[in-house]
Formats: sequence, C-alpha cells, structure tokens
Amino acid sequence: MNKKGKTYFFDSPPVIIGSAGVVGKKEGEGPLRSEFDAVFDNTDMGEDSYELAESAMLKDAIVRATQKAGVSLGDVDFIMTGDLLDQCVGSCFAIKDLNVPFVGMYGACSTMALTLCNSAMLIDAGASLCVAGASSHFASSERQFRYPLEYGSQRPPTAQWTVTGAGSAVVSRDGNGVNICAVHIGTVTDLGIKDANNMGAAMAPAAARTVSQMLDDTDTCPDDYDMILTGDLGYTGTELLHQLLRKDYNKNIKSKHNDCGLMIYNLKEQDVNSGGSGCGCSASVLCSYVLERLRTRELKRVMFVATGALMSPTSSKQGRSIPGIAHGVLLEAK
Amino acid sequence: MNKKGKTYFFDSPPVIIGSAGVVGKKEGEGPLRSEFDAVFDNTDMGEDSYELAESAMLKDAIVRATQKAGVSLGDVDFIMTGDLLDQCVGSCFAIKDLNVPFVGMYGACSTMALTLCNSAMLIDAGASLCVAGASSHFASSERQFRYPLEYGSQRPPTAQWTVTGAGSAVVSRDGNGVNICAVHIGTVTDLGIKDANNMGAAMAPAAARTVSQMLDDTDTCPDDYDMILTGDLGYTGTELLHQLLRKDYNKNIKSKHNDCGLMIYNLKEQDVNSGGSGCGCSASVLCSYVLERLRTRELKRVMFVATGALMSPTSSKQGRSIPGIAHGVLLEAK
Repeated sequence: MNKKGKTYFFDSPPVIIGSAGVVGKKEGEGPLRSEFDAVFDNTDMGEDSYELAESAMLKDAIVRATQKAGVSLGDVDFIMTGDLLDQCVGSCFAIKDLNVPFVGMYGACSTMALTLCNSAMLIDAGASLCVAGASSHFASSERQFRYPLEYGSQRPPTAQWTVTGAGSAVVSRDGNGVNICAVHIGTVTDLGIKDANNMGAAMAPAAARTVSQMLDDTDTCPDDYDMILTGDLGYTGTELLHQLLRKDYNKNIKSKHNDCGLMIYNLKEQDVNSGGSGCGCSASVLCSYVLERLRTRELKRVMFVATGALMSPTSSKQGRSIPGIAHGVLLEAK
Repeated sequence: MNKKGKTYFFDSPPVIIGSAGVVGKKEGEGPLRSEFDAVFDNTDMGEDSYELAESAMLKDAIVRATQKAGVSLGDVDFIMTGDLLDQCVGSCFAIKDLNVPFVGMYGACSTMALTLCNSAMLIDAGASLCVAGASSHFASSERQFRYPLEYGSQRPPTAQWTVTGAGSAVVSRDGNGVNICAVHIGTVTDLGIKDANNMGAAMAPAAARTVSQMLDDTDTCPDDYDMILTGDLGYTGTELLHQLLRKDYNKNIKSKHNDCGLMIYNLKEQDVNSGGSGCGCSASVLCSYVLERLRTRELKRVMFVATGALMSPTSSKQGRSIPGIAHGVLLEAK
C-alpha cells in the first residue's frame, strides 16, 4: 500500500466478495426492512442473556457473509470483529467456536470501518481471506451504559437508539465484488464534549477531520461520490458535521451525505430521538443496503466513514471528556 | 508475508527499533527492578483516578519507546494498543493527545503479542513505522473485575496479581534492533473453565495450542530457542501448560520456558499467589528485560506467546466459560 497524507491506497485493491447485515425487530420495522439478510423478531435469539443474543447475531452475520461469498470458514486467515460490551465479549463469544484465528479490535461505533481497514491492510500484507464484523444490541448496551430498562428514564432529544444488529464482510485478495481502494485510520479528536447523551456532538469533529482529510488525500470533491456515508452521527451529529466541514474545512458534503443512524429508522414514528447508534448500526446498513448497491453498480463510489465515541461508563462518571475517532474506507464498484 | 500452517513469515522481517517497559512500586520491588525503564513509586501517577494513572503509564511507555528508537511521534503511521478496562479506556485516554492514527485492539492479557503481530503485518503491508503497546493497573483492574480494595477479600492460591505497568515497542520497516521473523494469530480455545480466580487454567490450553503449532510451523524444537516466553500463566498455568504440551502434543518445553507472570515478582515474599497477570505484565517484561537481551544478543531467539482470558465480569456472573487465546511472535537478534 502507498501512503498519501494519512490515507493508504492499494495497487491491487482488496475485494469484498460477500457481506451480510442482520438486525432485530425494531430495525426490521424501519425503512430498510427489505434490505437486510435477516430480521430477528425474537431479539433474544433464543439465548439466556442479551449479551449472548448479541454474540449469536454477530455469528449469524459472519456465517451468512461467508456463505454468500462462497468460502469456507476453514479458509479464512483472520477474523476481526469488535463491539461495545465490556472486554468485547460480544465478539469473543460470537467467534469462539468458529475455529478461526481472531484479531480482537476496539473502535466503539467505528468498529466496522476499523475492521474493514485492518482486513484490507492484512490482505495487502499477504493474507488471502479476512472477515470483518461488528455488532451491538439495544438491551445489552442499555444494561451496560445507561439505566436498567425497567427504570424507564426519559431520553433527551440528542440521545440515540442503540441498534440491535450485526454486519460482516468477507475481504479477499481477488474475486468479484466491491473494491476497497483506500483506507484511512482515524486520529483521536477530543473537543471536550462530556454529555454521554450527545454522542453525535462528541463524534462529529472526528468525522469532519477524517472526511476532509480523505477528500484531500484522494484529490476528490464531494461530487465525485455517489454517497459519503457516516456511521451513526444521527440527526444532531449530522447537523454538526455539515457545520464543521463548512466552517473549519470549507467543504460542503450535504448533497452527497447520508448517515446510517438516519437511514435505519423512521426517526419520528419509531421514537428514536436523534437516530440509531452502536457498532451494529453502520455494520448492518453497510453490509446489506450499501454493499449490495455497490455490487449491482447502482452506487459506483462510496466513502464510508464510521465514528466512535471512546468513553466508558467509568470515564463518564469520573467527569472525563468523550474522545471521538473516525475511520474511513473508500469503496468502488468493480 | 508467507503462510505456513497458521504462522506468517516475513521475507523482510520488521524490526523493533526501540522499546520501553515501565511499572509501579510493587513490580519495582521484584527481581526485575533494575531492568525497567522507569519504576513509579507513586502508582496514581499524580492523576485523579486509577484509570487515568494507567493511561499515564502507557503514554509514558510509548513516549519513552519512541525516544529510545530515535523517532518522532509525528512519523508514526499507526499506534495500536489495548488494555483490560471497559471499552479500552486505558488506551483511548493514553493516546488521545498524541495525534497519531489509532488502531484499538483487544486481546485481554495477550494484547502485547496481538499489537506486535498486527504492527509487523502492517509494516509488511507498507507502513513505515508502527507503535505497539499494552497496559494494566492493579487498582483499576480490581475496581472492575473483583471486589472493592477495601473489602479485603481473600484470594485463592490460583489467583494472580494484576501488574501495574505498561510496555511499548516501536516497529519499523528497517533499522537496528530485534527482528520479528514470524507472527501467529491465535484461535480461541475454550475447554470450559469457569473459575475467574484461575485464569492460568483458562489460558493454558490456548498457550499449548499456539506454542505447539508455532514449533510445527517453524520446523523447530524447544532447544532451538534461548527462551520460550509466555505472558502471564503464573505458577498454576505454567504447570498446566507443561502437562498439556507433554500429554496432548508430545512436546517438552520445560528447560526453555519462562513466564512473565513468574519473572516479575518474588512469588512468596511478595504475596502474589500464582504470579503476575494483566496486559501490563508481559508488556513491561518483554519491552524491557527480554528485548534488551535480544538487542545485546545475550538472547538470540525467543518465542513470545502471550495469553488472554476473553471474559468480562458480566459473562462470569452469567455463568459462562472463560475462552482463552494465545498470540505468538518469533523474535530474533539481528
């Protein structure tokens, strides 16, 4: 790979040869209902806990993605996934019986972009087949980050709804599918936001930085893309991203921009305040709707930038800021 | 890189051109006291919380490692670190002001090996300079995984003591230092151990699998090494590793094997039961004592295999097993 600015380009672009996005009941009632590979109305997946339900959903997405790619798990060099749960147990229990070498990754809600970036780079290093993935689950996230569900606390308008869902993509050295032309590992950006009910504001500065830098590094303008897709900024974060890009970087992406957190729900009807969030948000939308349209060439070129808020309940209770990060992937139809 | 079995070999081995291991007061009172780059008697590092103290220690190790390597942080392509804290905040807050692209990784106590493996592979893909690292802190770990310190609960003999420490290594495409000749990403191995006070038993099966597979893939026997070094199996896990390797793999590594968890403390005098643990255990020992001896050619060839227990307090309370993983790095003096 070759570096220009902070972006890495591939002479032989790694190819996403299969992907799958699966979601829970609420997400299946949103505008993308017919796009997902599976909608699980029973969001506990028949498991004993929400945490295991999340793992089961991620495992399902991984298995579907490899089946769609026509590859066997035994041929996969590395699987790399991550999630929001303490010690990444969503991932650890999802992959523990798959018998594939496991690279655990953490990028909060940016994880799908992070695992795709790392997969593409490991393919460039000589691996043949990598699997990237990420997951989140509304109930396991609520248990961990916020109040017990039974408490029924009110949410401010800036709050987002954690998506119950998972996505997985199979990245290969060659084959038919969608090219990963460039990757961009984000740099932590911390403007001092401390409100854990306003993740959009915490993540927007990192998104603006990565989008702007990738446009510069690739010598492109927003009109060169069919879509500039962020992960889960939601309504509030999207507004801030547009403002920051105009003000600090003199760029306007509004006509090309969409956000997985805005796409996955009918915001008002589904009562999700500022939109969807969680690693599973961008993972499920990218690995179904977006990659499918790139495969059919309905979309030709997409910049996918997923953002993460690098906090924990402990860091928030200790009054710390919420550092943001945004990783980017440049996707092109073959 | 080229694959043989499950191990990846480099035509041009990436080089560790600098490293640093730093620890807290108790670790500075152990047998390796004169080996570390810094011993912090004040283990809160002047910070407001144990979590921030851990971050400060990791940041210190990273900065020292780059200084020893003679490189500027501005020249680093990627920094990849991980830790045991929820949502990896130890790492996130350590690197947040360094202004370097950040790859968050999670491998529990195997993290130092995982970040070294990934660094070496990204160098092989075309990056020039990567920084790998990991940390743990006794007090932040106790807060999260076990009882409040004030509770003063008794520990069983199989329990281990979380190391307060951090390590970091700078990996370069070329230069003087220690060669990374091969890397091995581990596969999760779960024999159903559920006792969170016996991590050695949970991790030993993964260690045996990785050590055996690496010996096979490299066509070597234990006598070809100056040291086969595991991360933090402690006394109990070490005994089990030797047994498993003899019984299941017909291999005897006893005369060449050591374990960072056994090296870092005087087990009996320092009242640490089965030995040291935590990401900072293998990170601080490898990045000081071991890499220094490889640099001076006192050691010529070391197989470093760090193990991780992929559990969370939630998964343990829910009665789940503790899946283990072990990542390996083959190190050679230049």
